[in-house]
Amino acid sequence: MEKGNLNSIADIEGVTVGHTTLDADLSETDAVRTGVTAILPHAGNWFEEKVPAASFVLNGFGKTAGLIQVDELGVLESPIMLTNTFSVAAVLQGTMDWMLKQNPAIGDSTSSLNIVVGECNDSYLNSMRLMAVKPEHAAQAIDSASADFAQGAVGAGKGMICYGVKGGIGSSSRIARYEDEAFTVGALVLSNFGRKEEIAIANWLSDSPAPEKPDGSVIIVIATDAPLDSRQLKRIAKRAAIGLGRTGTHIHNGSGDIIIAFSTAGRVSHHSKETFRTATLLRDEHPLMAELFQGTIEATEEAVYQSLFHAETTTGRLGRVIEKGEFN
Amino acid sequence: MEKGNLNSIADIEGVTVGHTTLDADLSETDAVRTGVTAILPHAGNWFEEKVPAASFVLNGFGKTAGLIQVDELGVLESPIMLTNTFSVAAVLQGTMDWMLKQNPAIGDSTSSLNIVVGECNDSYLNSMRLMAVKPEHAAQAIDSASADFAQGAVGAGKGMICYGVKGGIGSSSRIARYEDEAFTVGALVLSNFGRKEEIAIANWLSDSPAPEKPDGSVIIVIATDAPLDSRQLKRIAKRAAIGLGRTGTHIHNGSGDIIIAFSTAGRVSHHSKETFRTATLLRDEHPLMAELFQGTIEATEEAVYQSLFHAETTTGRLGRVIEKGEFN
Amino acid sequence: MEKGNLNSIADIEGVTVGHTTLDADLSETDAVRTGVTAILPHAGNWFEEKVPAASFVLNGFGKTAGLIQVDELGVLESPIMLTNTFSVAAVLQGTMDWMLKQNPAIGDSTSSLNIVVGECNDSYLNSMRLMAVKPEHAAQAIDSASADFAQGAVGAGKGMICYGVKGGIGSSSRIARYEDEAFTVGALVLSNFGRKEEIAIANWLSDSPAPEKPDGSVIIVIATDAPLDSRQLKRIAKRAAIGLGRTGTHIHNGSGDIIIAFSTAGRVSHHSKETFRTATLLRDEHPLMAELFQGTIEATEEAVYQSLFHAETTTGRLGRVIEKGEFN
Amino acid sequence: MEKGNLNSIADIEGVTVGHTTLDADLSETDAVRTGVTAILPHAGNWFEEKVPAASFVLNGFGKTAGLIQVDELGVLESPIMLTNTFSVAAVLQGTMDWMLKQNPAIGDSTSSLNIVVGECNDSYLNSMRLMAVKPEHAAQAIDSASADFAQGAVGAGKGMICYGVKGGIGSSSRIARYEDEAFTVGALVLSNFGRKEEIAIANWLSDSPAPEKPDGSVIIVIATDAPLDSRQLKRIAKRAAIGLGRTGTHIHNGSGDIIIAFSTAGRVSHHSKETFRTATLLRDEHPLMAELFQGTIEATEEAVYQSLFHAETTTGRLGRVIEKGEFN
Repeated sequence: MEKGNLNSIADIEGVTVGHTTLDADLSETDAVRTGVTAILPHAGNWFEEKVPAASFVLNGFGKTAGLIQVDELGVLESPIMLTNTFSVAAVLQGTMDWMLKQNPAIGDSTSSLNIVVGECNDSYLNSMRLMAVKPEHAAQAIDSASADFAQGAVGAGKGMICYGVKGGIGSSSRIARYEDEAFTVGALVLSNFGRKEEIAIANWLSDSPAPEKPDGSVIIVIATDAPLDSRQLKRIAKRAAIGLGRTGTHIHNGSGDIIIAFSTAGRVSHHSKETFRTATLLRDEHPLMAELFQGTIEATEEAVYQSLFHAETTTGRLGRVIEKGEFN
Repeated sequence: MEKGNLNSIADIEGVTVGHTTLDADLSETDAVRTGVTAILPHAGNWFEEKVPAASFVLNGFGKTAGLIQVDELGVLESPIMLTNTFSVAAVLQGTMDWMLKQNPAIGDSTSSLNIVVGECNDSYLNSMRLMAVKPEHAAQAIDSASADFAQGAVGAGKGMICYGVKGGIGSSSRIARYEDEAFTVGALVLSNFGRKEEIAIANWLSDSPAPEKPDGSVIIVIATDAPLDSRQLKRIAKRAAIGLGRTGTHIHNGSGDIIIAFSTAGRVSHHSKETFRTATLLRDEHPLMAELFQGTIEATEEAVYQSLFHAETTTGRLGRVIEKGEFN
Repeated sequence: MEKGNLNSIADIEGVTVGHTTLDADLSETDAVRTGVTAILPHAGNWFEEKVPAASFVLNGFGKTAGLIQVDELGVLESPIMLTNTFSVAAVLQGTMDWMLKQNPAIGDSTSSLNIVVGECNDSYLNSMRLMAVKPEHAAQAIDSASADFAQGAVGAGKGMICYGVKGGIGSSSRIARYEDEAFTVGALVLSNFGRKEEIAIANWLSDSPAPEKPDGSVIIVIATDAPLDSRQLKRIAKRAAIGLGRTGTHIHNGSGDIIIAFSTAGRVSHHSKETFRTATLLRDEHPLMAELFQGTIEATEEAVYQSLFHAETTTGRLGRVIEKGEFN
Repeated sequence: MEKGNLNSIADIEGVTVGHTTLDADLSETDAVRTGVTAILPHAGNWFEEKVPAASFVLNGFGKTAGLIQVDELGVLESPIMLTNTFSVAAVLQGTMDWMLKQNPAIGDSTSSLNIVVGECNDSYLNSMRLMAVKPEHAAQAIDSASADFAQGAVGAGKGMICYGVKGGIGSSSRIARYEDEAFTVGALVLSNFGRKEEIAIANWLSDSPAPEKPDGSVIIVIATDAPLDSRQLKRIAKRAAIGLGRTGTHIHNGSGDIIIAFSTAGRVSHHSKETFRTATLLRDEHPLMAELFQGTIEATEEAVYQSLFHAETTTGRLGRVIEKGEFN
């Protein structure tokens, strides 16, 4: 399928991505190799203009926050924030601080605020117990968001490991076309899963051994400009799981493999006083839906590989080195 | 049904509850009326000795953290922490700090840590945007846990409102008996839901008007010493929803009505190197299961009322007063 | 809350209900006391004009067919058929025969057909193993559907037992009003659950002992003319569970307690060749949603009681007698 | 990974498979090309000795019956029956007849019976509206079950189409080993999905065009002798979805893609009067679980291909021909 101009999730109009990357050597044994990544669903006020969203938990050994409300109400009202496992609290705090500043009425006359934070465990390279991520790093990631964002060992991806080599942030997109209509679907992954021998693509050029480490995780964010509601986005999210599976992993026991999908079409206004809202939705039976399903799979699969292609050999705590993967 | 000695969740051997209550007047308009409540599943190391657990989301307008992993693995490896909506991050952080100190290997050689934090919105009485709850308050709540704990306007319940009068923490228990066997089921609620006219029990003595406020929420924690696995505990959790419904609420749109159930029997050891584990489980068809279902409903229903009976008239921010409910 | 004109599910414009009641004495030990009930979502072609729908399984000890597709696609394309546990196949067959006759293209150029059949176990009074229900009885139930339908020991309710007395079909409705808008929500139950001592309403006039029998079940059908999509209808379905719980049952282990909710607004055309469809939806935050939640609870609760009030003392197989409940 | 001796689901001790294949030319336009396949979990009485089981719905455009109770109770108490979409009722009826004959107490003193029937739509080749499958064909499939069963265009697979060529029944197995322990996982698929251009394996030898037909479906049955409970079997079922995805499909809108997994270890006795039952379970963290996950993926993937390799060119109704796939 045809890719978008940027071949990234930012091909969906209005979607931007920002990173805060933390990189510091603290001692002979401790090193900070971590960060925060923010995926912004649009350039407006996310609380006031919610977007349809859904999630699918492929394997729930993970600590992602915020999905209960997404599943109940079918909307996302925050950026999707990514970080390491022990920094969910800091990023939740920092994103809340940011959004409460922007929205003075929340928690006063307006009820509450739901923030989505996903995570993977980067403790092989990063001294995760030291919790270098602070709330302000979430704000920095949000403030730096752009359609032209870096991939690889950046932001939340700084310390991640995928298929035994350096993983992190990867993104890709596909265009669904039928007759005169076209929609784009984009994937962004935080890749931190899989064993070297599992990968589905062609032979490794390097035979360096992979590290012995606990199972990792992956967070997959899918965005589209196709007008889909939460039920349909859950279907999209399941297809992302298929794309992930094609890269070779068996979806490990200890992996938090979580997919969050949203549409930038059909925003839901928080302050509406109307009785009804009108939703225009792509029909499930329309050929464009098949194209979106296929595009979701392909974009997810490629996003995983892009996270490897963009990565770089990284030395972390305890002098541990994770090499960039070299493929034929 | 017969109640336990304490008529509280602490009738389940080993379960204790601790509170940190924050109560301060900051200005003419701002007041702190909030806190943290910790429910400890046993007196040991929760990460090393996990307990079977499950959740049921009756209405998902809530920000509870940690349920994804509970649902995947069927175990709880932390206390269940309760606080206000904007303090999930602080309590998550503080509980993580506490548990990482206790468990030096987590995040180093041992993979990760899943913490459950539930919340309700106390912003009518409490200046919730000021985020008075700090991570250390979570630790204090854990450290103060006891089988002899306070109910009403304490801990996370300090600023909560239920059925238009003062709500908060309530607890109750029931004993399931059949022939020579007996098990106990206990409920603890953080009550913050419902409109005055909805309550199911007899007439109000006071006709003071209820406040105009957004929909609230309720977190229900169910504990039992009956040997149940996560599938069975989800069944228990659904019965808690029935008990909640009997108090009169219609389960409001904006309410995060979430139930978490755990068993203190059948602990799962983190450090086991065995291939297998053996679980002894109550059979679903056994009459004791029916007793446990009934006990869950009754204990939940009474726990809601106990949260009202133990409450006290509370003045909060903006000089707002929420009265203690007076019933016939 | 205000009731509809008929105080039944037929207060929702276009919804009709039909019964086939089978009543025969076969021998000294065997008797047929069973039947089929059909709830028709509208007067048109259900396959061509699907209605938004959702389900909620409160307790899944049941054999209801057809919910997987309802949950995936969010629509209902058949009547909702009710019968006894061993007659799901016959009713599925008969309903399929009826609908295939009406729709010659299904299974030829048009793909398939999803039929919803719910069931309860009437084997205490009915010789269920003899399978007296035949496919044509499903057709008869459909053909006899009317807004003016019988309740009590009729159709699928002929042999059902609820709270130890005669149960069966019951229905009720409530009107949700706010300013100038009004919508109706109606419930129809097939009641076959609960022990005599559990019932929540006032004292029994009769102290005749209840039969010793296995746990029963209940199927609850909720209809509304409010424009809701499948996500919202699942929320409605959960409130029906609350209404059920208010009648006193502890939701028994062996009970199939299943709720199916549909809206007659916002039909989805099967033959549309459009790219998009437009859905007008009630906003979740609108006060009418709270009214619908409350109305669902009240209508469900009353529908259970109506199934008792309309019932009549029934003698079944083995000379067993189940009395009509007499209440203060 | 190593395959079992038979490279089929029958490598799991006690699991057998039987087919009834219907093949008749009725007229110039109508032809019967369909059947029934029965997967028997063990050689005993399935109702009396239930097996742990779970399901996962990858895409719910399907009419599979019986999963609600499997999900609630975590056990399977019948064979898993497969047939065409319009024959679910007949096969449900026939299987019930068979099992009621074997179990005279069901529906009398013993409550009920839950039967699982999966289906795919074979209407391109088979005159599905004529409903050639009768209840007795289910019994024949059960009675003919054997560890040495046919694959390809047999039983329920007689008229199925997969990736544009002849599909049907396929099976495969893998052995999970770790130190001295070994367990087997087997997959059986009824393949009826996918477009010719989607298939992941090497180039087609034939360039004959694929038929224009509606989306198909796939039912995947996973069996293992590893001691897993229903929660763990749901995890296994999700891995089967990954294996399916690897064969190339994008999981079409109109496809009923449903996975049912069971374990032959840890049977649950229906007639137990004990208070407790004891379950020995493989620990989720044990390396054998990873092997089982990987084995599930591989066996599912190969089972799909085996369904093509064993198929044969088939002429159906309206003279339509579906060729056997020829691959490099």
